[in-house]
Amino acid sequence: MRILHTADWHLGRLFHGTHLTNDQSHLLDQFIDLLADQKPDVIVLSGDVYDRAYPPVEAVELLDETLARIAIDHNIPMLIIAGNHDNPSRLEFGSRLMTDRGIYLFGRLTSCDTPIVLQDADGPVTFYLAPYCEPAEVRAHLQDDAAVCFDSAMRSLVGRHQVNGRSVLLSHSFVHGGSVSDSERPLSIGGADTVSADHFLPFSYVALGHLHQPQSFNGGRVRYSGSLMKYSFNEAAQRKSVSIVEIDAAGEIQTEEFQLTPRRDMRVIRGTLEELLQRPDDYGPRDDYLMATLLDEGAVYDAMGRLRDVYPNLMHLERAAQLEGDGEIRRASDIVGKSDLDLFNDFMQAMTSSEMTPEQTEVFVEVAEEIRREEREGTS
Amino acid sequence: MRILHTADWHLGRLFHGTHLTNDQSHLLDQFIDLLADQKPDVIVLSGDVYDRAYPPVEAVELLDETLARIAIDHNIPMLIIAGNHDNPSRLEFGSRLMTDRGIYLFGRLTSCDTPIVLQDADGPVTFYLAPYCEPAEVRAHLQDDAAVCFDSAMRSLVGRHQVNGRSVLLSHSFVHGGSVSDSERPLSIGGADTVSADHFLPFSYVALGHLHQPQSFNGGRVRYSGSLMKYSFNEAAQRKSVSIVEIDAAGEIQTEEFQLTPRRDMRVIRGTLEELLQRPDDYGPRDDYLMATLLDEGAVYDAMGRLRDVYPNLMHLERAAQLEGDGEIRRASDIVGKSDLDLFNDFMQAMTSSEMTPEQTEVFVEVAEEIRREEREGTS
Repeated sequence: MRILHTADWHLGRLFHGTHLTNDQSHLLDQFIDLLADQKPDVIVLSGDVYDRAYPPVEAVELLDETLARIAIDHNIPMLIIAGNHDNPSRLEFGSRLMTDRGIYLFGRLTSCDTPIVLQDADGPVTFYLAPYCEPAEVRAHLQDDAAVCFDSAMRSLVGRHQVNGRSVLLSHSFVHGGSVSDSERPLSIGGADTVSADHFLPFSYVALGHLHQPQSFNGGRVRYSGSLMKYSFNEAAQRKSVSIVEIDAAGEIQTEEFQLTPRRDMRVIRGTLEELLQRPDDYGPRDDYLMATLLDEGAVYDAMGRLRDVYPNLMHLERAAQLEGDGEIRRASDIVGKSDLDLFNDFMQAMTSSEMTPEQTEVFVEVAEEIRREEREGTS
Repeated sequence: MRILHTADWHLGRLFHGTHLTNDQSHLLDQFIDLLADQKPDVIVLSGDVYDRAYPPVEAVELLDETLARIAIDHNIPMLIIAGNHDNPSRLEFGSRLMTDRGIYLFGRLTSCDTPIVLQDADGPVTFYLAPYCEPAEVRAHLQDDAAVCFDSAMRSLVGRHQVNGRSVLLSHSFVHGGSVSDSERPLSIGGADTVSADHFLPFSYVALGHLHQPQSFNGGRVRYSGSLMKYSFNEAAQRKSVSIVEIDAAGEIQTEEFQLTPRRDMRVIRGTLEELLQRPDDYGPRDDYLMATLLDEGAVYDAMGRLRDVYPNLMHLERAAQLEGDGEIRRASDIVGKSDLDLFNDFMQAMTSSEMTPEQTEVFVEVAEEIRREEREGTS
């Protein structure tokens, strides 16, 4: 069975205030072309279909159009699970009315008790569904008090099934040891949010979503396909792709990656203002989404405005070294990759000259968790 | 052909801060029961499925569940058009994937060029679709400059079809001379928003939505089924229903109304505070949604709090006559039924002692129109 694995489309995403719908549409056109070329038997999309609980109209239209092309024009079944950016109930709307057409949408854990079985010439392949959900939801639905964190919740979710024969798990989770990018929203603030790859041993293949960089574990049997496109500048060097996974009669797998070509690449350029202005041809296509790191030491005047005349999609500008008031050198790398908790702690330290107390940390985590939940439920 | 006509469900509506989902769900259960009893060949829902562009999760779940019961459990086709409260693109999501199951969702005008033809023993019945849309959209889509107002837009929309044989039009519009309720959102601020019933002469039956009171025109061939339930206290005396319309082989119609029983009725009670507190049994079921008109002349203390001990769902309280600062008697009836423009004009007059100038009126209409559009597009 040939499985086309993709994840983290994030339709409706804003990037530095710019809607990426045209970029996403451009990539999904190629995705559709790939179907004709590669003739997969099934498509799996492992969560974060949309970027937010209330996606903009353009994102809804793009998904609607894409699903229609997949199901009606190409007649290929597709399994979709919700990620932490999707609202589970909204994503599931109409799902029971679309299964005849081969589109399977799984948002709520309560919809995922029964796996989906697809057949090929070698017999059945069973697809298990694990959309993103909080440990508390797993605890409530399975009535299993052991599901206290993401890791134990995954053990409970997987453990309830007798996994035999050729099997695939779709999961939107953070595997321990995985490489993060800047564009993933943390699953938990200040708590453990990873799961062990050991839980995934029973499956022929585990199609993961959440981490935006393509990467694999357990000898390739556990895999993040990576996001549809780059969603932050620290992904500039990544090569985004979708994966075709071939499962043979014995349940052995072979994987091939297919790169889609973005409408505009996302890149970082470095140089002095003069270099960037005078020799733009040295820096690749001018209308890519760019971040410029300026190497100038002294003052520069209206760098953004002048650079944008040359690079119309320059999104962000930073100085390699920026002198702070107290003379301390502060670099962007001091911020990138830090958790919200760490950043807030830094801020508190700068303001009060002392570390946050455990009580303060607890209050911060509580408030941040609440905001995170509200974002997903779309109540804010 | 037996057509079950309903409209204006307004799923997700808030009533004085209270979610009506349980009430709507209670009525839709009866609606489903009616399908088994009356065995309609098709259901038509003439707009305002949801109450707003971004409906709450509970409303999405209720519609999802209801459509699944209609299509899967009862296997009855259903045609749905968008009303002025629905977002056209969001409502249409997945529509092409649901038609195999007999669910037809029409939001955007561009999706409505081709009518739907259903068959019964007497031959075909053609269903034309006219979801709510602004005259400007009609002008753009039909490239017809004559569509300058709602009335001329309807003439253009209907005029493009050669209507022959048995035919039904679904439309969400305001027929000239129709009786309004307090719970409809105006289609236009300060402009003409009605359409002539004459445009509807070519059809065997016109299934309308928008006005919440059941009512008919053209000898019953043009009909508002009315809303699913009462959505304002000025509808207290209305009898809400859904209609079964039987079209015979010759295109003649017979209509029967079916009343659904609300979980809680919406009623107005009148009396002095003492009467209402002492003799609640005289005023019907205590847990209905109630508005109380107090007949007391003098001061009363904490009327709302005391009445709520007896009538837990008392939503609103008013005094029959309320003395204003200047001694002028001001009644609620001075406000009810007035347009936003009239109310604002009253306010300006009270503040400035002069009528609004034409320029001021224009500014008000412009701003109010913008707010109205944003509400529908869900951008605010």
